[in-house]
Amino acid sequence: MAKQKPKNAFYAQSGGVTAVINASACGVLETARKYKHKIGKVYAGRNGIIGALTEDLIDTGKESAGAIKALRHTPSGAFGSCRYKLKSLEANKREYERLIEVFKAHDIGYFFYNGGGDSADTCLKISQLSETMGYPIQAIHIPKTVDNDLPITDNCPGFGSVAKYIAVSTREASFDVASMAKTSTKVFILEVMGRHAGWIAAAGGLASTQDTEIPIVILFPEVAFDQAKFLAKVDDNIKKYGYCTVVVSEGVKSPDGKFLADQGLKDAFGHAQLGGVAPVVAAIIKEGLNLKYHWGVADYLQRAARHIASKNDVEQAYAMGKAAVELAAKGHNSVMPTVVRVSSKPYKWKVGQAPLNKVANVEKMMPKDFITDDGFGITAKCREYLEPLIQGEDYPPYKNGMPQYVRLKNLAVKKKLSEFKL
Amino acid sequence: MAKQKPKNAFYAQSGGVTAVINASACGVLETARKYKHKIGKVYAGRNGIIGALTEDLIDTGKESAGAIKALRHTPSGAFGSCRYKLKSLEANKREYERLIEVFKAHDIGYFFYNGGGDSADTCLKISQLSETMGYPIQAIHIPKTVDNDLPITDNCPGFGSVAKYIAVSTREASFDVASMAKTSTKVFILEVMGRHAGWIAAAGGLASTQDTEIPIVILFPEVAFDQAKFLAKVDDNIKKYGYCTVVVSEGVKSPDGKFLADQGLKDAFGHAQLGGVAPVVAAIIKEGLNLKYHWGVADYLQRAARHIASKNDVEQAYAMGKAAVELAAKGHNSVMPTVVRVSSKPYKWKVGQAPLNKVANVEKMMPKDFITDDGFGITAKCREYLEPLIQGEDYPPYKNGMPQYVRLKNLAVKKKLSEFKL
Repeated sequence: MAKQKPKNAFYAQSGGVTAVINASACGVLETARKYKHKIGKVYAGRNGIIGALTEDLIDTGKESAGAIKALRHTPSGAFGSCRYKLKSLEANKREYERLIEVFKAHDIGYFFYNGGGDSADTCLKISQLSETMGYPIQAIHIPKTVDNDLPITDNCPGFGSVAKYIAVSTREASFDVASMAKTSTKVFILEVMGRHAGWIAAAGGLASTQDTEIPIVILFPEVAFDQAKFLAKVDDNIKKYGYCTVVVSEGVKSPDGKFLADQGLKDAFGHAQLGGVAPVVAAIIKEGLNLKYHWGVADYLQRAARHIASKNDVEQAYAMGKAAVELAAKGHNSVMPTVVRVSSKPYKWKVGQAPLNKVANVEKMMPKDFITDDGFGITAKCREYLEPLIQGEDYPPYKNGMPQYVRLKNLAVKKKLSEFKL
Repeated sequence: MAKQKPKNAFYAQSGGVTAVINASACGVLETARKYKHKIGKVYAGRNGIIGALTEDLIDTGKESAGAIKALRHTPSGAFGSCRYKLKSLEANKREYERLIEVFKAHDIGYFFYNGGGDSADTCLKISQLSETMGYPIQAIHIPKTVDNDLPITDNCPGFGSVAKYIAVSTREASFDVASMAKTSTKVFILEVMGRHAGWIAAAGGLASTQDTEIPIVILFPEVAFDQAKFLAKVDDNIKKYGYCTVVVSEGVKSPDGKFLADQGLKDAFGHAQLGGVAPVVAAIIKEGLNLKYHWGVADYLQRAARHIASKNDVEQAYAMGKAAVELAAKGHNSVMPTVVRVSSKPYKWKVGQAPLNKVANVEKMMPKDFITDDGFGITAKCREYLEPLIQGEDYPPYKNGMPQYVRLKNLAVKKKLSEFKL
């Protein structure tokens, strides 16, 4: 009997990239190379799902084993990512038909999608193509998001490294402002990502420990901003410590539900300014307490900071990619590998799995008991949850003082179909 | 003959702190402990020179050898710094008289001052106290500034580490935006320090190398901002690479000589906003090219980032502290140890020295031939100068995922004098 030719796989990166999403790609590609009897070629979508729609596929088989290995320590999305959400089958059947056309043309039977909540929804829709459109495919979602807001999995790869970056940076900047406070800056404000959930802001709280106490005020998106209470808290810290650090989530809202960052800033010509929330908080402190301040906005620096990635995060990101391929090889569909916490002290975890319909479009918020009663800090329970996620260092190799991040060849697979307009 | 009791020393940190100023302190304290026949106790000024004026002295002899050693990997100013410039002897004789009173009371014969250009001026004035006020003292300046603007010394301790941080962060954020550019952010803008000299901004140029080409546009304070030319340059990069990174110095000025950051921003209530320059550049790009952008402001994060310090910088910072004590022990006064570059490839350097009257109040700007003709990049000559300064990694120890920075006991020496009003 003739042995059946193994189906090819499609892999794509979706949404905002992270310091470790390429470690997941590394896990997918290295593991797929071990399952050649089940999985043929692995094609990566150039710029995420857009690569599938436009038949812009990258032949990962053309990359050396060394280049694939280097993905593990390279931040960003090596194949390009995108912000592009597939509509429902009813709303845009044309796109699904096109995907199937591309999958058929390139004999693709596996779909690996590396992303967050929106991407899980796309992956879920793809996983249903056997039922809805009669095209047999196994779709596996690989969790990734700095926001840590996917359900079921204990945490999301990508979050641990941004948390470590924010915790370390908050500690360092706090030491700095403490040195300057006598005659100069007394308040340092750091704006961090997290429009809906305060997980990243919470990580700022890790900067302060028993042996290195730091007065940190955290502004969570989950807690409506109370200006008077905030100023009183900062003032208390100044009186007690001589300085204060504020970690503010970009998503903090006024009691009226408006983003605090959206203060209607205008320049001298009357043009609207898209500012961050840090300068707004700085102005509130200046006006309310007349203290000298400095502010920083970490922006992409925080999620790209592979140089200070968490070792646990890198290992979990890799493990999720590896597990996705193993699940596929075992015949699974519509599933996402997860991180299951076995114990916090010592930290132990294992790989689990979750059905995609329980993951898609569900947002995991910070539990109420992770935030202190005054709304400005993290509880011991939150700390117990966060601490293991930032543990361990996993430094990239350096040459001439610079981290050696890989650029892939990203050679295109020959197109077989006519053009498709997005 | 009775052996003369060795004189005590005063050490203080001045101006903005850095990731490695404590490494200089470590060099001073460890070396002084080897010269007990010449140097008695080392008293540190709490909050810089203010500690001397207010007789708020810290007995560094109460710190363990382990704590002193840990200063080498601890950012910020462990004894507190200050922004406080002594006036001239004529303008404020009272302060100099007070200093001598404190020095006499605590038998201080050595004055080590760790700072930048302004501090070198203070140190010079102290070094002249034998002549001007009849009080015998040896004053040695220890170079420190992230701005790299001290003359004679090839570079300033503190700069190499901030340069490495900016180069690494620029590379990481550029990889990020490259991944997103197809459907989302196309321009990333990073604001860096350097109000007068573009050394730190120049370091952003190191992010791009032959094997990792990145389109980077640098805005130097030395080059008047030309909006049309800037937009054309960004547009060119977008066309060629699909994305662009902008590294902008906080000190960039309009052709009329005004800081670009000072755009008369007002909030909805008409209050002036002290914004950074990054959001201003972002607005210019939005309006001129209608491209999606992200911006970051590194602020204190850059100068406190001990976690990614340059090994060469740490070694030089330590060596400057060590050399200062050795110069003092040899009887020198009114001098500053310097870094002398012996060769760039391979990088070799040695310790030199400069008379303080050649250092004080002289600002070293970027040479014209370090900036490319179009004004937006660094030349090969600049790269050859900068590259050795960021070389080598010198990671701090970690515990539970966090760098272990030391907090000293900072025990006060018993006061002997009456209070002094600043």
